[in-house]
Amino acid sequence: MQLTKKNLEERRDRIYDAIIVGGGAGGLSAGVYLQRFRLSSLIIDKGKARSFWMQELHNYLGLPPDTPGRVLLKQGKEHYSSLDGDMLNGYVEEVIDEGETFAVRVKVGRQNSIYPVFRSKYLIAASGIIDHLVPLEDMKNVFDYAGYNLHVCMVCDGYEMTDKHCGFFAGSEASIEEMVFNLSWFTPYITIFTHGLFEVSGEMREKLRSHGYRLIETPIKQFLGENHHMTGVELVDGTVVELETGLISMGSHYHSTYLKGIDLELKGQNIVTDKMGRTSHPRIFAIGDLKVGLNQVAVAVGDGALAATQIWRDIRRASGPRLWEENLAVKA
Amino acid sequence: MQLTKKNLEERRDRIYDAIIVGGGAGGLSAGVYLQRFRLSSLIIDKGKARSFWMQELHNYLGLPPDTPGRVLLKQGKEHYSSLDGDMLNGYVEEVIDEGETFAVRVKVGRQNSIYPVFRSKYLIAASGIIDHLVPLEDMKNVFDYAGYNLHVCMVCDGYEMTDKHCGFFAGSEASIEEMVFNLSWFTPYITIFTHGLFEVSGEMREKLRSHGYRLIETPIKQFLGENHHMTGVELVDGTVVELETGLISMGSHYHSTYLKGIDLELKGQNIVTDKMGRTSHPRIFAIGDLKVGLNQVAVAVGDGALAATQIWRDIRRASGPRLWEENLAVKA
Repeated sequence: MQLTKKNLEERRDRIYDAIIVGGGAGGLSAGVYLQRFRLSSLIIDKGKARSFWMQELHNYLGLPPDTPGRVLLKQGKEHYSSLDGDMLNGYVEEVIDEGETFAVRVKVGRQNSIYPVFRSKYLIAASGIIDHLVPLEDMKNVFDYAGYNLHVCMVCDGYEMTDKHCGFFAGSEASIEEMVFNLSWFTPYITIFTHGLFEVSGEMREKLRSHGYRLIETPIKQFLGENHHMTGVELVDGTVVELETGLISMGSHYHSTYLKGIDLELKGQNIVTDKMGRTSHPRIFAIGDLKVGLNQVAVAVGDGALAATQIWRDIRRASGPRLWEENLAVKA
Repeated sequence: MQLTKKNLEERRDRIYDAIIVGGGAGGLSAGVYLQRFRLSSLIIDKGKARSFWMQELHNYLGLPPDTPGRVLLKQGKEHYSSLDGDMLNGYVEEVIDEGETFAVRVKVGRQNSIYPVFRSKYLIAASGIIDHLVPLEDMKNVFDYAGYNLHVCMVCDGYEMTDKHCGFFAGSEASIEEMVFNLSWFTPYITIFTHGLFEVSGEMREKLRSHGYRLIETPIKQFLGENHHMTGVELVDGTVVELETGLISMGSHYHSTYLKGIDLELKGQNIVTDKMGRTSHPRIFAIGDLKVGLNQVAVAVGDGALAATQIWRDIRRASGPRLWEENLAVKA
């Protein structure tokens, strides 16, 4: 059921089989599997998963290629609710490992917040990441285009950028090195914007020049366009640069601060897992964008199935087979 | 485009980036990703993927939980075709590793068959498995119920069997050992049928007895029921055993004979892969039910994304970045 400030007292004494932090595609898939394994689960969702911002999912099998991410999430929530999974809108502040259980402290409500604690045997970290966007004074101007033709994921949307004049909005020289030459697979018409945030080395300048890519270091005043279709940028000096599409690569915020008290093996900021999503802590699983691997909705959904199945195996093995009691009674 | 006997000559000289053997959920997902990576692909499908037989997909995020597997496949084929992927109905007989390319020999057409050869740099084995069913004289009687309430996958459909009287149709004592005690998680009301196919050891008899499970070794004459709803079985001696659901566990046929000339690392009959689906052969990937792992549609779809992405990385790295030629020309 949907938990609210009014009814969450009913769950205070429950020990869930698993609490899932994050109600995105991965978390919902895990929840559906857990409920179908006849395990109890609670999804705690702060809202607005990364896929919520995707205006068109182009590569998730089974849905028409122009389906908004929010449609997938809505269908997933209905699916999970139909299996009697518990759901709570809230922000997980801290997870404490109590040995047999985890204590999960949640902030519920923006005003008059309350801080209930829920408990579970297993934890699935499915809270993902969110992309840093170009830091303009007027962020609404960025939100107007981000997720439309101003993209944040090359694997997801490279196809849409094919042979278009593309602005690459870099957060560091490392992001240029890592992404720009791969982006050229889709389009070589690349203009890199540093927004004045960092210095570009002489070596990189020469490398970009030798590929014919343009480099603009003047800060951006605003994106131009209408109806969510970005057509270029205006720089602070008044110059207008026309563009047909864009890719922002300024790093990501990892929604994993609630795990800071637990010593998990990391690779960079990503959580290391085995093939079933188990982290270096035997009762914590990580799925989707938080874990090491490819950040794709299709992968996160598969991850959810794997993690839930492994948790079921663990719990099933610990509890042993059920008996057909009547048949035993007859013989006794 | 859809290749047919009439137009396939047009593709005789093409070297595809990847040929995908199998047009199930995994193969279609790989195809969608490959085409969106601007690579060329051909899916060769013999028809009737395992998911084609699923009357209701209960656990694939984004689709309502009563969606037939064939609806997912139809949507996937439309998606792939909309990206100009090539598709051929045919049976892959043999794959020969020619060093830089694979030669893939296909049987096309049941009558007046022709045997064209297609070539690709990479191969994705996505041809899956199919479950052995109870071998009755009248197989139509089995097909009437298989995929409805006579299931073949416990992870997929265990939930639907909850606390129901369940027939377990075993292919060997090993399948009893491996499955029955796990099945009891969903229901302890288990009647095991050997169909007279194998002997049951004294030790196993005692183990089943001690759990209260019934064992029936008389061969089955037919399944009983109507409108695809199985209500029991009739044995060859005329006895009727009432049931509410069933699980067939008689092993699977692996659609991988076309790989027999290539030395791939196996675990049992499953192909060993790394996290991206790459087999022990650097240009062959295996996804879905053929590979080691959990046999689930959600996992196969994620596998397709991973394998296609790794193939793109390989090919992209080999080809190097593209240049913005006009800018270089200006400077020269």
